[in-house]
Amino acid sequence: MKVLVLNSGSSSLKFQMYKMENEKVLAKGIVERIGLDKPVLKYERHDGVKLQETIAVKNHDDALRLICQKLVDPEQGVMKSLCEVEAVGHRVVHGGEKVSQPVKVDEGVKAIIRDCCSLAPLHNPPNLSGIEACEHVFKGTPNVAVFDTAFHQTMPAESYLYAIPYEYYTKYGIRKYGFHGTSHKFVANSTAEFLKTPMEKLKLITCHLGNGCSVAAINGGNVLDTSMGLTPLMGLVMGTRCGDIDPGVLLHLSKLGMKTEEIDALLNKKSGILGVAGINSSDMRDLEHAVQEGKAQAKQAMDMFIHRLVFYVGAYHTLLGGADAVVFTGGIGENSEFVRGLIVPRLEAIGCRLDNAANHKAVRGKAGVISTPESTLKAVVMPTNEELMIARETVRVLRGA
Amino acid sequence: MKVLVLNSGSSSLKFQMYKMENEKVLAKGIVERIGLDKPVLKYERHDGVKLQETIAVKNHDDALRLICQKLVDPEQGVMKSLCEVEAVGHRVVHGGEKVSQPVKVDEGVKAIIRDCCSLAPLHNPPNLSGIEACEHVFKGTPNVAVFDTAFHQTMPAESYLYAIPYEYYTKYGIRKYGFHGTSHKFVANSTAEFLKTPMEKLKLITCHLGNGCSVAAINGGNVLDTSMGLTPLMGLVMGTRCGDIDPGVLLHLSKLGMKTEEIDALLNKKSGILGVAGINSSDMRDLEHAVQEGKAQAKQAMDMFIHRLVFYVGAYHTLLGGADAVVFTGGIGENSEFVRGLIVPRLEAIGCRLDNAANHKAVRGKAGVISTPESTLKAVVMPTNEELMIARETVRVLRGA
Repeated sequence: MKVLVLNSGSSSLKFQMYKMENEKVLAKGIVERIGLDKPVLKYERHDGVKLQETIAVKNHDDALRLICQKLVDPEQGVMKSLCEVEAVGHRVVHGGEKVSQPVKVDEGVKAIIRDCCSLAPLHNPPNLSGIEACEHVFKGTPNVAVFDTAFHQTMPAESYLYAIPYEYYTKYGIRKYGFHGTSHKFVANSTAEFLKTPMEKLKLITCHLGNGCSVAAINGGNVLDTSMGLTPLMGLVMGTRCGDIDPGVLLHLSKLGMKTEEIDALLNKKSGILGVAGINSSDMRDLEHAVQEGKAQAKQAMDMFIHRLVFYVGAYHTLLGGADAVVFTGGIGENSEFVRGLIVPRLEAIGCRLDNAANHKAVRGKAGVISTPESTLKAVVMPTNEELMIARETVRVLRGA
Repeated sequence: MKVLVLNSGSSSLKFQMYKMENEKVLAKGIVERIGLDKPVLKYERHDGVKLQETIAVKNHDDALRLICQKLVDPEQGVMKSLCEVEAVGHRVVHGGEKVSQPVKVDEGVKAIIRDCCSLAPLHNPPNLSGIEACEHVFKGTPNVAVFDTAFHQTMPAESYLYAIPYEYYTKYGIRKYGFHGTSHKFVANSTAEFLKTPMEKLKLITCHLGNGCSVAAINGGNVLDTSMGLTPLMGLVMGTRCGDIDPGVLLHLSKLGMKTEEIDALLNKKSGILGVAGINSSDMRDLEHAVQEGKAQAKQAMDMFIHRLVFYVGAYHTLLGGADAVVFTGGIGENSEFVRGLIVPRLEAIGCRLDNAANHKAVRGKAGVISTPESTLKAVVMPTNEELMIARETVRVLRGA
């Protein structure tokens, strides 16, 4: 059984082709610069065959057709015919309140995605374009939409409501939705398996630390709270996003004469590590190097990143009434021994002690415990795989589970 | 030794006259509706003499003169001459970064208060008016300014910096300042005394819960973090303020066409308990009644209030590396057995268990422990007294301590 997983951005289309029997990636790649100057296709087959081509594509339809040509190419491809693709799984960022599960796409689902465009103006429109491209290219093949917000729909009202007049929720849908849901769910499932404990009995704090960062408190498979909100701007310090900030700051900037679009760009694109570290980069690896070189402003940015994360882990531990494990995933969470080595020692008050050797030995792509055996709160490194999760969810939906 | 304490708002002037030898309040009261229609003076003497008069006052100078007339009135007053007042202590909301201690007022201090007007436009201008009124009425008597922000100046940079480009801090002073500092400091001192432990050895989480609400993490007498920010809008759910909210919500509201002043009024004056509880009140006592009457929306608002508070207490407990006590103060913290009875049981994961009988017996105006003896984190009810703290700080400054 073959499943294609698509993640379409405003000018890109990422894909992975899975063979579900063994969850193997047969081929993967990306078309970049769609609709812009000199679009490029990068393609990689499971056996190491790699290619990169400058191509002519005007839209997501064109891009998908080119990807499909490669997939069935007699020399570079991985199958004889597109008919072998049993379903396409799509990453969709925002499903609002109407979807709490992955769903087979029909006109109703497309309407929901369209309705949520105002809440995710950068993501939902291209996500929809990706789905429509599949409807044109893969006629009759089912599409499944897997929403970033779906898992967080299990949150209780006291977590998702903001303390603003109630009609802003009922009329405009202003509430906390949360993001990275597919990743939080994936690592929660993987952690349950790894710890050999049924999900229903686990309390977890999952930290997805990548370019975007979020934390989720998960109680028996349901989200109790998460750090991102109506938008992905709230919560932790991120690559270019500010995370938590006094709403009074936005009012103050506006009174200083800044326009909404300028404030938006400031907080979303010029803040976070990029804004405070003084290293002209939003990349945690660059920040780490700068800290190790003894740069004071970089050190301060790292302290802020750690402070904010420890704040959330502590808050969620108490809200959960204690937790079994704090889980690190995403590019930073999986790869940075340095960052984990700064966070975990700050969690001693809630029963978590760093095992330095285990932290040092933790290998990318493999699950591992990095806390000492006596720790009452385990620290776990767990690889995430949103594409695989989307492929699995797609199969689950097709089987009607 | 007599000290007058003043708290001047835009249209009000509150006062308390202290005899410092025994810290007794000789007289207290307020002039309301200054510069508005039908101003009124309310005055109360230590022996129960009370009066309320409609008066004619155009400004804070007038109001102060009227108060002084009463204080030296042969029948209703408490002293023979204004010369007996050795100093006046003033509550000042915002001192920015330049003051971390109460200070004797001179032209430089007045310039600082003036410079911070843009950060506290509703409070600093009348605070300054109150000081200037004293300069006119009490010629030669020293004025001491006690700043709401001063105590929080002990915060480290990783707590007070926002993750926005660094120049917004250096150029515009945009950072976390924190408020209610006088109250947090007062109850921290009182708690150290009550627990018979030197402040340097204590880790405390102080919860000031009144119409405005804030939490502070205090480590050995220094603030590690606090929930209010550049403005008093951030943090807990309050009477009419929203507290923490995704900055993306403000951007979204602005894109929906709301003006900055409208968003400001929405989040500062129409949100919090008033906005969500559906009881047309911002008062926690009304919310409690509504919850006890079984009103669903009120219950939801209470759940949000508790959730947010538990979130902060847990976060600060972990950031502090464990804490000795969580302290409840302010109108809600001191008086609401009901609210404390909802919060403390949620703190079990960090070693705090409610002693129901002790919570029931806790009396307004008296310190008390409401956790069980086995609790590793004590829960303490502690009366706050900002006016007394201002009087004490005023004496301390005069003595050059």
